[in-house]
Amino acid sequence: MDFSLETAIFAALIAFFANVILCPLLIPILKKIKFGQNVRDDGPKSHLQKTGTPTMGGIIIIVSFLAGVAFFLQGNTTGVLVVAVTIAFGVIGFLDDYVKVIKKRSLGLRAATKFMLQIFVGGLFLFLLSTVSDGYNYFLVPFMNGHSINMGWFFVPATLFILLGTVNGVNFTDGLDGLASSVTAIVAVFFLLGAYILGNNELLPIIGAVAGSLLGFLLFNSHPAKVFMGDTGSLALGGFVGAIAVVLEMQLFLAIVGLVYVFEVLSVVLQVGYFKLTKGKRLFKMAPLHHHFELMGIPEAKVVAMFCIFTIIMVLFGFLAMFGFAA
Amino acid sequence: MDFSLETAIFAALIAFFANVILCPLLIPILKKIKFGQNVRDDGPKSHLQKTGTPTMGGIIIIVSFLAGVAFFLQGNTTGVLVVAVTIAFGVIGFLDDYVKVIKKRSLGLRAATKFMLQIFVGGLFLFLLSTVSDGYNYFLVPFMNGHSINMGWFFVPATLFILLGTVNGVNFTDGLDGLASSVTAIVAVFFLLGAYILGNNELLPIIGAVAGSLLGFLLFNSHPAKVFMGDTGSLALGGFVGAIAVVLEMQLFLAIVGLVYVFEVLSVVLQVGYFKLTKGKRLFKMAPLHHHFELMGIPEAKVVAMFCIFTIIMVLFGFLAMFGFAA
Repeated sequence: MDFSLETAIFAALIAFFANVILCPLLIPILKKIKFGQNVRDDGPKSHLQKTGTPTMGGIIIIVSFLAGVAFFLQGNTTGVLVVAVTIAFGVIGFLDDYVKVIKKRSLGLRAATKFMLQIFVGGLFLFLLSTVSDGYNYFLVPFMNGHSINMGWFFVPATLFILLGTVNGVNFTDGLDGLASSVTAIVAVFFLLGAYILGNNELLPIIGAVAGSLLGFLLFNSHPAKVFMGDTGSLALGGFVGAIAVVLEMQLFLAIVGLVYVFEVLSVVLQVGYFKLTKGKRLFKMAPLHHHFELMGIPEAKVVAMFCIFTIIMVLFGFLAMFGFAA
Repeated sequence: MDFSLETAIFAALIAFFANVILCPLLIPILKKIKFGQNVRDDGPKSHLQKTGTPTMGGIIIIVSFLAGVAFFLQGNTTGVLVVAVTIAFGVIGFLDDYVKVIKKRSLGLRAATKFMLQIFVGGLFLFLLSTVSDGYNYFLVPFMNGHSINMGWFFVPATLFILLGTVNGVNFTDGLDGLASSVTAIVAVFFLLGAYILGNNELLPIIGAVAGSLLGFLLFNSHPAKVFMGDTGSLALGGFVGAIAVVLEMQLFLAIVGLVYVFEVLSVVLQVGYFKLTKGKRLFKMAPLHHHFELMGIPEAKVVAMFCIFTIIMVLFGFLAMFGFAA
């Protein structure tokens, strides 16, 4: 498979317009069948007005993504794998959303169940990838002039850790109107050009389709949002970003371009840990991190803009990290 | 001059951080010396609360831009020309802003004065460009496989028309928080990659610096804005975008990637024309176009998101128009 950047643009346009068509059709349906999510009652009070906004918009993101990649999967093994991982994580997210809606349990699936399912999908992905090529043992090292290191036996646990970290990072990032969609669209553009620079052209239309799908979704998901992606969307996107990074051997670059995800997860971990350690003190006004900024008085749309701009700057560093600077 | 994409990133980062440093320092000063712009009393009423937000933030954009390009101008003739045009149009905008503030005339310079100054700067730019190289007679034709046409004597009037159209298009676009900055940042990224594809590497850091400067400015200019760019900013940016398009012979591509500018100008022209023709009827609820959408009840931040997403999609078409599709 040797796709050009043009195919990425075509895939992006198809996925974009699929959203433009599907969102107006499906948002009222999502709303009708009572998929209006119960907003976390432990979130900022200003978010209570969000009750009634339908969730599970991730379904639209995924379907549009599939429309965009449909023409570019024949014989494209790694492409098919990435698409499959995206859907599989989307299904886990869907189960989670479903439990939230049907059982009216704002927190969704039990954490252990969710975690086991994620481990299973992640592990299966790495196993299938190893059957496609036995070359997947390397991590490309940032700022080392394109140098890779062989991770040996450590490859699988390290990659699994990064993959699940990314999935949960995107999941935590999804808490403000348009935040997860816009940050992930920017990260996708990085990996699109990254794949092109590395000469991995099989993935170009796949990545383009995600970026285009998110762009279309943002028309409805940006502040004030008419629809949320739900865990259906955020787990699918996390799975996608993680899988792309693995296939490109760019796991370590996630710590640069996906720093927002990292900070969001860390803020939760640190908040909980600090709370337990100090028996009741808080490190942040609220975790995940974006709520901390909101409670500092920064308007929601501004926090989203800040996180997007921060991600774009990290993407610039990501490109510098690809181009070189040998030690 | 043969700059790499890395230099564009460096220039962008310098210009970005210059904004991050300068905005907090200069915004209070702009506010103090009463540069709080009188919001157009013919705009939507919801904008009255914007009175007091300082304008002339364009000064910060330009200074940061200069910081970003400073290392990349030696021997870079076309680069210097583009920078000079940007500053020259910025000065016209500054005069306009100054009249608004000192004379408290919300409309600024007289239209005829502004127009003559723009014609003068635009004409001087084309003359100087012709002294640098006599190859500037061509227009690259979109969707024609990289084919150019020799415009002959028509080159100067056509280019001048497009240049001034762009300047005034960006000027009209600047009417919602973050609108002109974000749309122009996207357009700049298009021309950055466009210049790279065409092999015109002299301009890479210059274009990168503008994109980076706008990104930094957006931290303060995005909704809710702490500062406006004013005509200082919008005329400078219009001059920049127009000049870049001329140097790359991509004037016609402005009708694609700068379609927001075109629509904004057209909405004003059509509104005024229709009003006169029908003796009092209006085509849009309000012109320029972004106010029309606002008065349809779409929140300001959403209109900005829509215009940005639309511009990104047009940029994708712009790339397709560069790559080919011969007739």
